[in-house]
Amino acid sequence: MGSSLGKVFRVTTFGESHGPAVGAVIDGCPPRLPLEEKDIQPQLDRRRPGQSPLSTARSESDRVTILSGTENGVTLGSPITLVVTNRDQRPSDYHGFANIPRPSHADFTYRAKYGIHSSSGGGRSSARETVGRVAAGAVAEKLLKEYYGVQIVAWVSSIGSLDAPDMTNSQVTRDLVDKSPVRCPHPQTSSAMIAAIQEVKQQGDSIGGIITCVCRGVPPGWGEPVFDKLEACLAHAMLSIPATKGFEIGSGFSGSRQRGSQHNDAFIMKTRGLGTATNRSGGVQGGISNGEQIVLRVAFKPPASIARAQKTADYEGRPSELKALGRHDPCVVPRAVPIVESMCALVLADLALRQEILRQKP
Amino acid sequence: MGSSLGKVFRVTTFGESHGPAVGAVIDGCPPRLPLEEKDIQPQLDRRRPGQSPLSTARSESDRVTILSGTENGVTLGSPITLVVTNRDQRPSDYHGFANIPRPSHADFTYRAKYGIHSSSGGGRSSARETVGRVAAGAVAEKLLKEYYGVQIVAWVSSIGSLDAPDMTNSQVTRDLVDKSPVRCPHPQTSSAMIAAIQEVKQQGDSIGGIITCVCRGVPPGWGEPVFDKLEACLAHAMLSIPATKGFEIGSGFSGSRQRGSQHNDAFIMKTRGLGTATNRSGGVQGGISNGEQIVLRVAFKPPASIARAQKTADYEGRPSELKALGRHDPCVVPRAVPIVESMCALVLADLALRQEILRQKP
Amino acid sequence: MGSSLGKVFRVTTFGESHGPAVGAVIDGCPPRLPLEEKDIQPQLDRRRPGQSPLSTARSESDRVTILSGTENGVTLGSPITLVVTNRDQRPSDYHGFANIPRPSHADFTYRAKYGIHSSSGGGRSSARETVGRVAAGAVAEKLLKEYYGVQIVAWVSSIGSLDAPDMTNSQVTRDLVDKSPVRCPHPQTSSAMIAAIQEVKQQGDSIGGIITCVCRGVPPGWGEPVFDKLEACLAHAMLSIPATKGFEIGSGFSGSRQRGSQHNDAFIMKTRGLGTATNRSGGVQGGISNGEQIVLRVAFKPPASIARAQKTADYEGRPSELKALGRHDPCVVPRAVPIVESMCALVLADLALRQEILRQKP
Amino acid sequence: MGSSLGKVFRVTTFGESHGPAVGAVIDGCPPRLPLEEKDIQPQLDRRRPGQSPLSTARSESDRVTILSGTENGVTLGSPITLVVTNRDQRPSDYHGFANIPRPSHADFTYRAKYGIHSSSGGGRSSARETVGRVAAGAVAEKLLKEYYGVQIVAWVSSIGSLDAPDMTNSQVTRDLVDKSPVRCPHPQTSSAMIAAIQEVKQQGDSIGGIITCVCRGVPPGWGEPVFDKLEACLAHAMLSIPATKGFEIGSGFSGSRQRGSQHNDAFIMKTRGLGTATNRSGGVQGGISNGEQIVLRVAFKPPASIARAQKTADYEGRPSELKALGRHDPCVVPRAVPIVESMCALVLADLALRQEILRQKP
Repeated sequence: MGSSLGKVFRVTTFGESHGPAVGAVIDGCPPRLPLEEKDIQPQLDRRRPGQSPLSTARSESDRVTILSGTENGVTLGSPITLVVTNRDQRPSDYHGFANIPRPSHADFTYRAKYGIHSSSGGGRSSARETVGRVAAGAVAEKLLKEYYGVQIVAWVSSIGSLDAPDMTNSQVTRDLVDKSPVRCPHPQTSSAMIAAIQEVKQQGDSIGGIITCVCRGVPPGWGEPVFDKLEACLAHAMLSIPATKGFEIGSGFSGSRQRGSQHNDAFIMKTRGLGTATNRSGGVQGGISNGEQIVLRVAFKPPASIARAQKTADYEGRPSELKALGRHDPCVVPRAVPIVESMCALVLADLALRQEILRQKP
Repeated sequence: MGSSLGKVFRVTTFGESHGPAVGAVIDGCPPRLPLEEKDIQPQLDRRRPGQSPLSTARSESDRVTILSGTENGVTLGSPITLVVTNRDQRPSDYHGFANIPRPSHADFTYRAKYGIHSSSGGGRSSARETVGRVAAGAVAEKLLKEYYGVQIVAWVSSIGSLDAPDMTNSQVTRDLVDKSPVRCPHPQTSSAMIAAIQEVKQQGDSIGGIITCVCRGVPPGWGEPVFDKLEACLAHAMLSIPATKGFEIGSGFSGSRQRGSQHNDAFIMKTRGLGTATNRSGGVQGGISNGEQIVLRVAFKPPASIARAQKTADYEGRPSELKALGRHDPCVVPRAVPIVESMCALVLADLALRQEILRQKP
Repeated sequence: MGSSLGKVFRVTTFGESHGPAVGAVIDGCPPRLPLEEKDIQPQLDRRRPGQSPLSTARSESDRVTILSGTENGVTLGSPITLVVTNRDQRPSDYHGFANIPRPSHADFTYRAKYGIHSSSGGGRSSARETVGRVAAGAVAEKLLKEYYGVQIVAWVSSIGSLDAPDMTNSQVTRDLVDKSPVRCPHPQTSSAMIAAIQEVKQQGDSIGGIITCVCRGVPPGWGEPVFDKLEACLAHAMLSIPATKGFEIGSGFSGSRQRGSQHNDAFIMKTRGLGTATNRSGGVQGGISNGEQIVLRVAFKPPASIARAQKTADYEGRPSELKALGRHDPCVVPRAVPIVESMCALVLADLALRQEILRQKP
Repeated sequence: MGSSLGKVFRVTTFGESHGPAVGAVIDGCPPRLPLEEKDIQPQLDRRRPGQSPLSTARSESDRVTILSGTENGVTLGSPITLVVTNRDQRPSDYHGFANIPRPSHADFTYRAKYGIHSSSGGGRSSARETVGRVAAGAVAEKLLKEYYGVQIVAWVSSIGSLDAPDMTNSQVTRDLVDKSPVRCPHPQTSSAMIAAIQEVKQQGDSIGGIITCVCRGVPPGWGEPVFDKLEACLAHAMLSIPATKGFEIGSGFSGSRQRGSQHNDAFIMKTRGLGTATNRSGGVQGGISNGEQIVLRVAFKPPASIARAQKTADYEGRPSELKALGRHDPCVVPRAVPIVESMCALVLADLALRQEILRQKP
């Protein structure tokens, strides 16, 4: 009862990591939007593992099929079903976990909640579930681009203790981001990050990081006070991504250190209309977009699956040692970039359409 | 279309800051729960302005009335309506803003969204809206306490650059929190915070801060993957509070700096069953509570209303100067403590009841 | 968890028959709609008991107050709260039912469901709950009239076995309907109905009837296949009214007797555009309005509360005799006319706004 | 935005009649329920066209595949995706309708609503969409049977003016129903119905009918006042089925003809507990199941597609003649029997799980 997101542009993801398929159904996408598989595939390709020596070797081609909702390359206004077949299933890699819940994994909690857990891989708690999010997010992005001219770009701004300088005002593009194997558009930091991840990998360890995301071209008026404020919906979406531990909008936690006289964004006239001279608000005031660039940051913990042996306990509490087998990323943050963009797109598409309701006139 | 939160325990808040009343309706509270006004009033009193020389002088008695949903002090299973009359209306204080949108306030965005904004005060964007949240949150807390033994305690852990030491494992109580006028249970830091706020007030400025919140006694199993994960719902709820800019669960942003071998929470047997030796996860794994204490932090920006004159522009873009009149807190963080607790309670009550659905057996 | 209706224009009703108040909150009404108490009061007055010698003597003034969501007579886009105080509470009338569930009442089922039932009157199962529906329905109607020019008129078309002739094409107005004490716009049938109700009343009995409702001016395009089809939402709304047992749209059950060649509505050009020569569809094709008049009928059972003694059993199954005290209508159908209109308005307002979402263009 | 039904057991159907596939996703089915394709296939087979000489010759094998949500024949608590491939696509049959909206079809209204309509067949307005409903309904039925012992049986009680006698108390089984090619368990009426349908078919015409459905074993307590009453949810579900025009529960429209003294269901002690001597209420009082058999009736209009030529107009209003080609049933009512059962199951499963929420105790 928690696999749907959005009220008007509503996405439901489905599929277990080692079942027949993963995917999503979107109910509420407007009709007459041009949409083909080729609009969706690029973001799936960016999400796909095995793209660089830094990531897991699991090789999925992840070809998306549109099962419903379009005809002749145009949406019909009916539910859009997106399916990606699971090809590379290696359940045997996961054998032997039956009695030991993996530390900081969802084995224990899924069993506590559902009384059952998929016997191989993470089932729904696997990062593979995000395939459906990314596929649906690409549809949302198409809508945002075609109807509203919105652009969403995310990148890796930190890996471990390595921080790239602030590039939120640098008109970073996805092309620029993808030039870096770790998706950090700041070349020097990118090199250092690559080295750090390789070191961590050699040590059989893993490392976390931070993604920064900007949304350009969002018009004033999106966001639904008092509970579905823009930043509230974004926070919801981001914290639903596996391995996330924090969310910031605009000045974020550092804003809490400031004084009002420093933090307030004064209004000035811009070419597109009234705007603000600074953007500590991150594009949102009172839960509603103000026309400035939306800026958010998402913290990812280090992956729980590490090659090193870990001391832990089995379900009966007996001290045990666990050593992960299978394919695991030492750092998931670069691959999470299109996921963050997708969740952002899903939130914005929903709020954009909800704002359409208020447009009508007597 | 955004004033409701929750899927099963569903709260809708209503009311403008300078209209006749503010309040909330809860649909989905189970029947047979003892509930009277006196269960709700204490948290409203803690939220109320004018409690200390540090906060605004607006004096509202904020007496709650239960208009529906109970009989003889017990819930009936029907919608519970909670109303608080607005007594101290001083719309004249807000005159003169008609042409100048206040910086980092919601004047501009409400006008962009709705094409109309309440002429006096903030309307729905005012902190007064949180009266409904706190009233409803008290009902949620009653349910959590009576049915599940859950305890929620929040406190101020930072004001500006002043940070209290980590007290998440110190069994902090609300009584202890309320001994400090700034709701920081660490006496030395509390004193420093008071001094800092007074200084800021004298300067006609404002200051932000951070609230830490812990939930004790949450059983394993709460949270609804993949979108309504416990941390996702908490993040949503927290970022819907006015003036919030960030959210962390467990290790939060600092967790992104760590390695998996440091960050993973190993399992050990505890008296209540299997638990974890550390709690970097913050009580959540895979979006589901794991039985450990839930730990979260929320960042608040400095209040936008400051006594100092600010250079800005009017709606036509003409350079203007604005000086706030009316009653304004130099620091809202202490008063936000019961609001954070209430939002936490609303999320937990909803997820607790959603988990009841899975309990049934053939 | 069932006191809300609608997805975009969403109403939640609250209040027990013998509690402090009844009312409704609407979340999702667009801003800038002129709205005052005087727009709502007339329909409440039409719903009010004690209007004619035929109905119950319970005298409620039923004055509505707008607690939130408007300022200076215009909606703000925020939740609109409508409250009507319960004045005439006579709980003693209902004493003595504690042990005997009233036949065809909700006493038994409420106790089975909630484990508790309001000790006096019907609580939420009372017809008094419909005050909230009618108040909210009046807001919906205002929206429909101002923005779309939609008109909704219902009347009593049958009482017991007395059927008025079909008047769906007669441009019946509310004024005409209200000229009849039983709200049947066909004078001869109206007189016969009055006599029938008086006879039933003298016998300490009750009687059912049928309401016909037409909606004029609904443009083509309202209704959301495949589950929220216009007729499905209308059926939902109508069957949620107390004492209803059946719903028909257009040809209804009699349509099931016909052949396709008789039943199909051929297209013809009309002044407003393409329409149909006949309207057996009742204004809906494929779940979407087609621009023709929407025509529906709702069946009401005879009220369960009768003055006559009834043989039944108490909660322990012991044979018992029950004789209703208190104030009861021998026939609720005339008073249900504004309720049917209100439910119709609530459904149409929601579907109208949902259709706005599809209007936007690239 | 209307392809989902249910709040806890929530089904979304997808797929166009001539697209790659049709199906459904269920979010909210509890874990640990045994479920395999063979639990679903039988009802799909009953729904399938081409089963008797009376129905259309379109031959679809309609094999269902479970794409997600189960492992080793047991549900996981995650979304269950059910897919049926469309094999027999003959878009050419539908050529030539581009300019003439078919009378009493959805061509005109879909175009008015969405500005686009699937070019071949009915798209979402086709009866083929009900494949997803029936597949999901079979899952709901499995849940109802395993967890609650509920049985649902529907049959054809009228075709045109031919009415079978009341058999609601005859413990009719699906086996008995399926012995009749028109699914009428009353042999003599069945024979007459077959003759009537054949006659209509020879005349190139179509005919409507009525389905009666009973649900046995529903415990007291299901249904969510005030809007999601059991009968309201059933009415919603039934009127969302293509070609339906009316709904009755219990005494239905004929109940409106009665007096309270005739209509009231007196309580008596039964072996399973307190029950009612009669069941004019149809198993529902105050919107909540009372433990008696639920009895409902649904009216189906005659299919709009007839072989005979029809005079109508094209989109520009020019008088035109239309003669349906393609494969069409002269009477859809027999095939609608499993659809009615499925919609009934979907409603009951949702309300059953919603009632679980109220079960918990302090």
